[in-house]
Order: sequence, then C-alpha cells, then structure tokens
Amino acid sequence: MSWIMQSVMGRKALAGGKAGARHTLTEEDQGEFHYVYGPYSEPVMRIAPGDVVEVETIDAFGGLIKTEDDKPSELLNMPFVNPQNGPIAVEGAEKGDVLAVHIHSVLPRGPQPAGTTALIPSFGALAADANMMLNPGLPERVKKMEVTEAGVKFSDRITLPFEPFIGTMGISPEIEAVTSLQPDYWGGNMDLPDVAPGAVVYFPVQRKDAHFFVGDCHGRQGDGELCGVAVEIAATVVLQIDLIKGWSIPGVRLETEDFIMSVGSARPMEDAARMAYRDLVRWMVEDHGFDEVEAYFLATQAGKMRVGNIVDPKYTLGASMRKEYLR
Amino acid sequence: MSWIMQSVMGRKALAGGKAGARHTLTEEDQGEFHYVYGPYSEPVMRIAPGDVVEVETIDAFGGLIKTEDDKPSELLNMPFVNPQNGPIAVEGAEKGDVLAVHIHSVLPRGPQPAGTTALIPSFGALAADANMMLNPGLPERVKKMEVTEAGVKFSDRITLPFEPFIGTMGISPEIEAVTSLQPDYWGGNMDLPDVAPGAVVYFPVQRKDAHFFVGDCHGRQGDGELCGVAVEIAATVVLQIDLIKGWSIPGVRLETEDFIMSVGSARPMEDAARMAYRDLVRWMVEDHGFDEVEAYFLATQAGKMRVGNIVDPKYTLGASMRKEYLR
Amino acid sequence: MSWIMQSVMGRKALAGGKAGARHTLTEEDQGEFHYVYGPYSEPVMRIAPGDVVEVETIDAFGGLIKTEDDKPSELLNMPFVNPQNGPIAVEGAEKGDVLAVHIHSVLPRGPQPAGTTALIPSFGALAADANMMLNPGLPERVKKMEVTEAGVKFSDRITLPFEPFIGTMGISPEIEAVTSLQPDYWGGNMDLPDVAPGAVVYFPVQRKDAHFFVGDCHGRQGDGELCGVAVEIAATVVLQIDLIKGWSIPGVRLETEDFIMSVGSARPMEDAARMAYRDLVRWMVEDHGFDEVEAYFLATQAGKMRVGNIVDPKYTLGASMRKEYLR
Amino acid sequence: MSWIMQSVMGRKALAGGKAGARHTLTEEDQGEFHYVYGPYSEPVMRIAPGDVVEVETIDAFGGLIKTEDDKPSELLNMPFVNPQNGPIAVEGAEKGDVLAVHIHSVLPRGPQPAGTTALIPSFGALAADANMMLNPGLPERVKKMEVTEAGVKFSDRITLPFEPFIGTMGISPEIEAVTSLQPDYWGGNMDLPDVAPGAVVYFPVQRKDAHFFVGDCHGRQGDGELCGVAVEIAATVVLQIDLIKGWSIPGVRLETEDFIMSVGSARPMEDAARMAYRDLVRWMVEDHGFDEVEAYFLATQAGKMRVGNIVDPKYTLGASMRKEYLR
Repeated sequence: MSWIMQSVMGRKALAGGKAGARHTLTEEDQGEFHYVYGPYSEPVMRIAPGDVVEVETIDAFGGLIKTEDDKPSELLNMPFVNPQNGPIAVEGAEKGDVLAVHIHSVLPRGPQPAGTTALIPSFGALAADANMMLNPGLPERVKKMEVTEAGVKFSDRITLPFEPFIGTMGISPEIEAVTSLQPDYWGGNMDLPDVAPGAVVYFPVQRKDAHFFVGDCHGRQGDGELCGVAVEIAATVVLQIDLIKGWSIPGVRLETEDFIMSVGSARPMEDAARMAYRDLVRWMVEDHGFDEVEAYFLATQAGKMRVGNIVDPKYTLGASMRKEYLR
Repeated sequence: MSWIMQSVMGRKALAGGKAGARHTLTEEDQGEFHYVYGPYSEPVMRIAPGDVVEVETIDAFGGLIKTEDDKPSELLNMPFVNPQNGPIAVEGAEKGDVLAVHIHSVLPRGPQPAGTTALIPSFGALAADANMMLNPGLPERVKKMEVTEAGVKFSDRITLPFEPFIGTMGISPEIEAVTSLQPDYWGGNMDLPDVAPGAVVYFPVQRKDAHFFVGDCHGRQGDGELCGVAVEIAATVVLQIDLIKGWSIPGVRLETEDFIMSVGSARPMEDAARMAYRDLVRWMVEDHGFDEVEAYFLATQAGKMRVGNIVDPKYTLGASMRKEYLR
Repeated sequence: MSWIMQSVMGRKALAGGKAGARHTLTEEDQGEFHYVYGPYSEPVMRIAPGDVVEVETIDAFGGLIKTEDDKPSELLNMPFVNPQNGPIAVEGAEKGDVLAVHIHSVLPRGPQPAGTTALIPSFGALAADANMMLNPGLPERVKKMEVTEAGVKFSDRITLPFEPFIGTMGISPEIEAVTSLQPDYWGGNMDLPDVAPGAVVYFPVQRKDAHFFVGDCHGRQGDGELCGVAVEIAATVVLQIDLIKGWSIPGVRLETEDFIMSVGSARPMEDAARMAYRDLVRWMVEDHGFDEVEAYFLATQAGKMRVGNIVDPKYTLGASMRKEYLR
Repeated sequence: MSWIMQSVMGRKALAGGKAGARHTLTEEDQGEFHYVYGPYSEPVMRIAPGDVVEVETIDAFGGLIKTEDDKPSELLNMPFVNPQNGPIAVEGAEKGDVLAVHIHSVLPRGPQPAGTTALIPSFGALAADANMMLNPGLPERVKKMEVTEAGVKFSDRITLPFEPFIGTMGISPEIEAVTSLQPDYWGGNMDLPDVAPGAVVYFPVQRKDAHFFVGDCHGRQGDGELCGVAVEIAATVVLQIDLIKGWSIPGVRLETEDFIMSVGSARPMEDAARMAYRDLVRWMVEDHGFDEVEAYFLATQAGKMRVGNIVDPKYTLGASMRKEYLR
C-alpha cells in the first residue's frame, strides 16, 4: 500500500499503510447508533493509527423498511434516520492533523441481502415539496432489490453492477453536532461514489482523538442520487485508519491509485463545484509543484468532476486530477 | 449507422443515416462569421436532410490571439467573440421537428496546429470579477499548446489526449438572436465534451429550415471548462445532418453507441442538473416504456452526469443512461 | 426637474430635464408590437433628447385574456407574449452614452379598466413544472380585477393601493435580440416596482440611436411577482427621454428624489443581489466621493434591497442608498 | 398587548401577553457563553410562560475588537464567535408547541457605547475568498461607531438612525448543536432587521423546555448585511417569552402590529425566498381563511420581501403580508 503516499509526498502517515491491530465493531457492540456528527457522545472504541477496523453498519433506514408495502412516512421518525457507527477515537489525533482512512472493502451483510430505495415525501431532486413548491407530492413508493457481489437486481430485466461505497463517513466537528444527513468539510453524508474500496479518504481533524463515524452504505448509486435514496444496504466495512500529523486541509480530500480528488459540499451546486476545484488547484500548488495559473489551466483542460449528491442539505461534488499529470 | 435509430425507435429520420450529397463550407465561403444564434441572417448554404457537410471553423477568438504575449483584453472586441459558421438551411425542417446531427469528425486545421487557452479578465469559474466580487482580477495570461491527433502538448512534461469536440453548435431560435457565448434549449455554447465524433445530437427545430450554426471547436476540455477557455482550435468538422419529422423535444438530447443523454443549460447549476435529469426520465418514459417512478429510480441508481461548463451565461450539464438498461 | 441631476453631478444630460417636443405613439401608430429587445426592427418613431413621449401600451397578454373563464394555455402563443411598443430611435445616442428616462405617469387605459393576473402552466416561483420538478402542475386560473386610480379591487373585501409601474422597459442590445420576457443589463422585463412615476431610469446605450422599447404595465405588484403575473394592464405612459453623453455604466441604474438604485438581473438570486450591490458601491465611489471600503460599509449598514422578480428568466433585484447619506 | 393574538386567532398563548415574573440574566450570571444552538448545555435559567427576561448580551466578537487598529484575524478564534446567552428553559414547552417571544426593547450597554463593523478575511457577500474564488482577499479593516439611542455615528458627516434588533435568537434543535453563525428553522443567526422591538417572534419548539438562546445585537443594519458585519453592539434586551401549545409550524414566523411574516433560511437565495413565501401562503390558508390560489395571488400583488442576510451559512429572507388584508 505504499502507493498511498504518492500524492502526499513528504506528508508522513504514522503507520504509513502498515496495518496495526485489527478491531471488530459489531452491531451489538455499537448498541445505540448516532444521528449526529458531533463531540457530545462517548467513543465506542479506541484505536491506534494504522489499526484496521471491521464495522457492521445498518442501512440508512435503520432496517425499518422491510417490504415494498411499507410506508416510509409512517416508519421513519425524523430526525432519527441515517444511523451511524462510532465514534471511534483515534489516539494522538489533534486539530491540525489529517485522518487517512483506507477503505479495504464494503460487503452486504446477512443471508438475504436486500437493498432498498424509495420515494419519500418531501425528498428528492425532482420532488416539488422538497424544493419549496406548492404542488402536492409525488406518490410514496418503496423498491426492494437483491444485492450481492454479483450485482444489484433492479428488475427482472436489469441487473446493475455491484459498485459499493460508503455514503456517510467522517469526523466530529469541534463544537457542532450536525445531522448525519448533511455533508460538510468534516465528511458526513457526502453520498459520493468515489468513497469506495481502494480509496484513501482524508479528513481534517477538528478535535482530540478525531472521533470517527461511519454508516449508510450503498450497493451502488448514480451520479447525484437523484430521488435521494440509493441502493441502501446494511454492510460490513473494513477500514484502515491512519494519521498524518500537521497537515492542514480545508475539507475532505481523497485519492485512488489513479487520481486525487478534492470534495466540496455546499449550495448552490456551483459553490460546491468551485469549492472542490479551488481546493484541487491549491493542492496541486502545495504538494505537486504547480504554479497557481498552470494548475488552474490544467484543471480546465483535464479536471474531472463527479456529481455525488444533489439532494442532501448540502450538495457534494468531487474535482479530480489524474496522477499521471502530477509527475 | 443504423444504430442512430436505436433510441428513437419509431421516430423516422428522413435519410435514416444514409448519406446524401456532400457539401463543403470553407472559411472563404463563410465570409462573415456570426456572433448570435438567430433568424436574422441569410443562410450561407442550403442542404437536404441526410446531406454531409464539411465545415472549416475558426477558433473562439477568431484567430486573434497568436502568441503567449498577446493581451486578450486588447485584442478581443466584445460582443464579437466565438464566431460561428452558418446558418445552414435544412430543407423541409419546421417547428416541431428535430434536427439530428451526426458528428463524423473534428480535426485541427492548418500546418502549425496551435491551441489557445487564456485567463481573460472578468471570466472564469474561480475569478472574482466574473462573479460579482469587489476584489481585483487575476492576472491576464495566454497559453499556446501544440494540438495534433497525437495529443495536446500542455507542457514539456504533460501531453494530454486529443479528445476533440464541438463547443458551440445548434439551431436558430424562432425570434430571438442570442450571443453565441450562451447555451440554451437550442444548443449554442454548451461546451459539453460529449458533443464529439460518434455522437448524434438532437435539436428541437424552432423555425422553417432550422438554420444550423456551428463553431468553437476544442482540442479537449476538462469537466466544467474551469477558467472559461478550453483548448481552442480552428478545426475541420464533418457532419451529417438529418431530419426527424414530428418529434417534439424540449431541449437538446444526444446519443452515442453506448448511452442516451439529455442536456440542461440553466443557472444555478442544480437547475441545469434537474432539467437534464427530468428530461432523461421523460425520455425513458416516452420512448423506452418505463413507468415514471421506475425511470426516476433507475436514473437514481444508474444515471451519469457530465458537467459541461460552469462558466458560460448558462451552465450546461448532461444526464445520461446506458443503452443496455433501456432494453 | 433639476433634481434629476443631483446624483449625476458633473454628468450633463443634453436637455437637462427641459422638455422638448411632445410625441404620441398610439396603439394604432405602433401597428405590430415586438416580442424581442433587439436591433433588427425599424424604429416606429424618432425623437430628440429631452422630448416627451406618450405611449399606449397593451397588456402582457396582448389583451387576449378577457374573462376569468379564459384559458391562458389555449390563448397564448409562445413566444409571442409581453408585446412591446417601439423601438423609438433617440437621435445622437451612441454606445457609451446613457439614456435617462424620466417616468411622468402610468395610467390605465380605456373605459372598463380591468387588470389580469393568472396561474399559467409552467410558470411561477412556487410551481413545480416551472422549476424542473416531476410533479403535475397547479390548476390553471385567471383573476380579473378592476383597476382605477382609486385602487386595485382584489376582492369584495380587499382593495389594494394603485401603485402603477412599468414592468418592461429598456434599450436594444448591440447584436442580440432577446425575448421581452427576460431582464438584463439593457433593462427588459425587470418587473421592478421602483420603475414608477417619479423615477429616472438610466440605460447603457448599446447601439446608434439607442432603440428604446416599453410595455407591460402593472397596476401594482408585490415583491418578487410571486406567481409570475402582476396586475397586468393596458396603460398610457408618459416619459421624458434624455441623453447623457459619455457615461459608461454596466447595467441599469435609477434614481428618485429620495434614493439612488443599482439594478441586478441574474440567476441565482444572490448573483443578482451581488451585481446590484457591487454596482451601488462602485457608483458611490465614482460619483459620490466614497472610498471603496467606506461605501461597502455604508451599504452594509444602510443599503436597501428591493426584490423585483423571482420568476423571469433572470431574477431582478435593486440595491439602493438614500441620497441624504450621499452628501 | 392583546394585539399579539390577532394573527393567531384560536391559538391560545398560555399567558396571553400578560407579564409573569421578571428575571435578569447579567453577563456575570451567564458566565460561559455558547457558540452553538443545541441541547447539550445546561439551562442557565428556568422560567414560566409569560415571564419577562432582561438579558445582558455581548457583541458578536465577544468584545475582543476594541479599536480600529485591531486585527480580527488575530483576535478571533474560530469557531468561538457570536457568543450567545442561554439556554433559558421554558417550563412546559414540548415538541409541537410554539415559543412566542415578544421583544420589548434592545438598548446599547455601557458608558461608552461603541458599535463595531469590520472587513474580515474570508467573509462578506462581495469578498472573493468567502465565495470560492482564487483571488487574494480584500483588505482587513475595522470601523468603530458611537451608538446611542440618538443614532449611529457612521462618520462626521453621516448619522444613521438607531434601529436596533436582535441578530441571533432561537431555540435548540432536537439533537443537533449548530454554530450560532447559522440561521435555520430554529432561528439562530437570521440577521433579520424585523426581529426588533415590537415584534413577536414564533419558534417551533424541538425539545422539552425549548432551551432558548439570544445574542448578537445590532445597532442597525442594511438589507443583506452586505460585508457580513452589522453595527455590532453589546446590548440589554428585554423579552417576554410565552408558549402556544399545539401549534405546529415548519420554521420561524413573526408579527408586528402591521404585518405577519414568514422567515426562510436557505441557499441559494431563491430557496429562502420560496420557503418564506410558501409558508406565508400556507399561513394565510390555515389561519386566515384564504383559498390557496387566492393566497398565492394576494402574495403576488401585495407581498413584501425583506432581505435579512446574504452572508451567513444560510441566507435569510422574510415574506410578509399586511394585516389589513387578512381581515
């Protein structure tokens, strides 16, 4: 895993990719799940930088939606949705450090893997009531899909690739405790398909021991998470969590073997796009030796933009650059 | 080219992909270029549906920026930028029809192919003066790049793939004449990299004989066209222009062998995203037999979103669906 | 009317408020009305700076909606809505000048004054179909109101003040011809209630003789023109049109006896707000001796913001400063 | 104060405007101030519905900026800005109730009343760095102004009216703890000049005993709070806090003797405008007997929109209707 270090040249992770102890956080261990990213809850586990954690997550509905006849409006109890595992305290982490989370795997849990999507009242990118219109809502609807490593069975005719990722992951803000439905500079509900096995995600630590949260796995998702609900699954997630001391970043960044990506979460959507691209330009300047205008030009000609979500309290976009152009 | 018809099943193009006469529109034939998409100019050429046209375009600066020492602010004379070839009258086209434009090729013109990008005062996604801020502008800067079919030479170290496309293309509005810098339901300055060789682009005809315009080719471009100026080139474009009678579409659509795409141009960016995705959902319902909610669900799980431009008077995004999921 | 000059100190209008010849442009004189602001139509009248013009306008629907049982969706023929009188050529006007239009009066025409408002499919700030949602539309509905100088009879119970203004007014762009439904730097469909009797409105001339248009009067309107349709009336408008040579302004400005106002038309709404306020700050610097930061501070503590429309192709906001703070 | 009840006909406040006990919360009583609106802090005081509270607030900078030579970037320690008094527990309040806060007075504290405004790096509506641009920031600058009931002395030449109001006020969310810089459905940093003496402000209670916060008073402010910093003052605030059982409202509402107002906080700005106007329409339907379309029409012709802030994490706008049109 030495490739992790490629883009953070000179930035020294404590474990440097070498795996430390292995921990397991089962659904039972977790006990009570969390609905905010914040500093006001006790850690459920303490780990050292470099340790590997296997976490049993439950789906964004807490498993309450069991059949296509269920009514989300009756079963869900706002704001108690999108339950999160954690917080996991990472020893030695302080404000001004970066938590580097390497995603090893995301696999559906249980004998009868079933993903859920739904039309939920007052939610979704094309739903009038979610967007301050007077019109009556769209119909309420639940769809269940079999999810295995072989694919997501959308219908008898259509099987979509299994491309799992973590919808919600991040660290505690310093003094805020914010709904796990919202993405922001601390991560949270980014619903960004690049937060997937193979990626290393960087979070700017805001408080002592970081306090890491994770949940809301998706069997797959299109760009934008249009109706607001991806292929929601309970999953087993394996992560290696490392620490980079003294790296100050303004928000979430990530990298894969192929590219580096800056993540922006904001409204309107162009603010998220600008936030992501501005940070990418600055990252290219700080760590990759570019002049600012050259970085701006290269992002113009070769930058890629991923639309994560256009439905959450902030929209999330990722701006990326292939590593082959970085040196 | 029978694949053109795959997604427009039951929609009968007059020529159906069979090439008719071949026309050439040289820079000299064109004479005066146009800076608006509108009905107030005389056609420079008349063609029949199915005809193939080879067009010599000039770059978005009309070739005025020749060296890296040139100052765009001195050489450019607003609003006379982004010069367009045309209008080409397509016989038989009427309001309520669709012009189907198959892009055969886009190749750089001339013995010394040189692409231009630039930081231009009051322009660009990350430029304060372009976005209503009080701060002084970024530096003015020009960059020239060698552009051949082998690649775009960004710097001694970096050669980017040659992935040419047409930045500005479309048909005349019915009574408006709008700057060629703006994209809209008639096409125009979409700066969308999918408008590339192999694609068929569909435009909703607004007036008799359609009056087709084209120009502003790019050697390549990143998502969003961040600084506002792609790899601008003079190019030779080969297009086959066909007509589909009685197909009413609300804006630009396109398809390739792999996917269908609906295009939205609007501000803020989420309105462009919604416009594109809503049209994709409706297209899936109208032509591909989906129930509206099922189409909405499939777009949520498998839709792809391309960010074309986030710098022009309207931002352009494309929402697409792979054809393998359409039947 | 010497007060006109208060805020444009040193800026010399040719007539300086002194009325020249008086012209009348009746509905019959006008003949064909216009649906775009552009340079491609012949002037219906030529005047000298300082002349007074009395214009008979028709309502935004061209008078087609006569009763509350009428269906706008059947009667209106897009894009032929919002008919405009003009263009009126103003002799001597050139790019780089300002047309100063003093509004003397706006009065309802005809023996049976009747204002119209309506819910029109795919239109309005709270209508799903107008804002890219999937939901079905709101009901279609027409409301007729008696409009006299005594008031607007909204219902048996509610009579609203008669506070007439001009919804659409401005000058031709240089090469564009843009729908009269859109506001922009040339004026157009601003739907800004401050464009009312007593105000002087400044437009940046874009072409020889300016080519002035006017239409779309309102008996009154709330901030934002929420459903998209104000109290639409046919009206008789009296204007004095003067010329200020060599004053370069980036967009529409206006003044009354009490305040100066900069107008911004853009999407999203914050861009219109910033456009208006930035121009106000710059106007305070250029003509009123403020340091830029002091102007920014004063606008922060004493600026007023009028929301004109949040329904047209661009939203229009006005940022104003009371003259008593300007010296 | 029986007028309080006019617009909430049938909605019975427990005390109904009759003053109960009087409490004082001095700066010393408060001790530690709060920087989040949330449920994780202990009440500093408990009151009964109808009680009157006099609160000593400190300014948004915690009094740290003392002279025009001070540097906010050195003195401020994010996120510890905008300190709040409270929480005040209101006995009997539960989710589904409304806290009705009548503002009696807002007066500057201390012998040398001094208001502060400032240009702060990365903040302000026209500041590049606050809005994701690459440009370098505007200059840092502090301005002190004498603030008395006689006026705000902006400069030797300009004295602005003293029009004090409360910038930040509201109740705790149920499980979130959100920065006091952000406005939302619970109130918070609305920076809305209508939250002033004479108004009654309604907050939707989210948790047991409501937990009320208040701070951040302004000597005055223009629409939008353009540079992000109003005339910031330490103030003594007198409030009567009443409770309306069983009134479910989606966000903040307020009323004065003259009008009712719905408040929307969101980005982009049009979403705040729509949120405010949609709630106003629904309020007119629920409590004032309007048909929805009639309410929509009346808001179109007679609604007023106040722009509170266009600088905070969410923008705040208020949509209002004069009471004379409500019956």
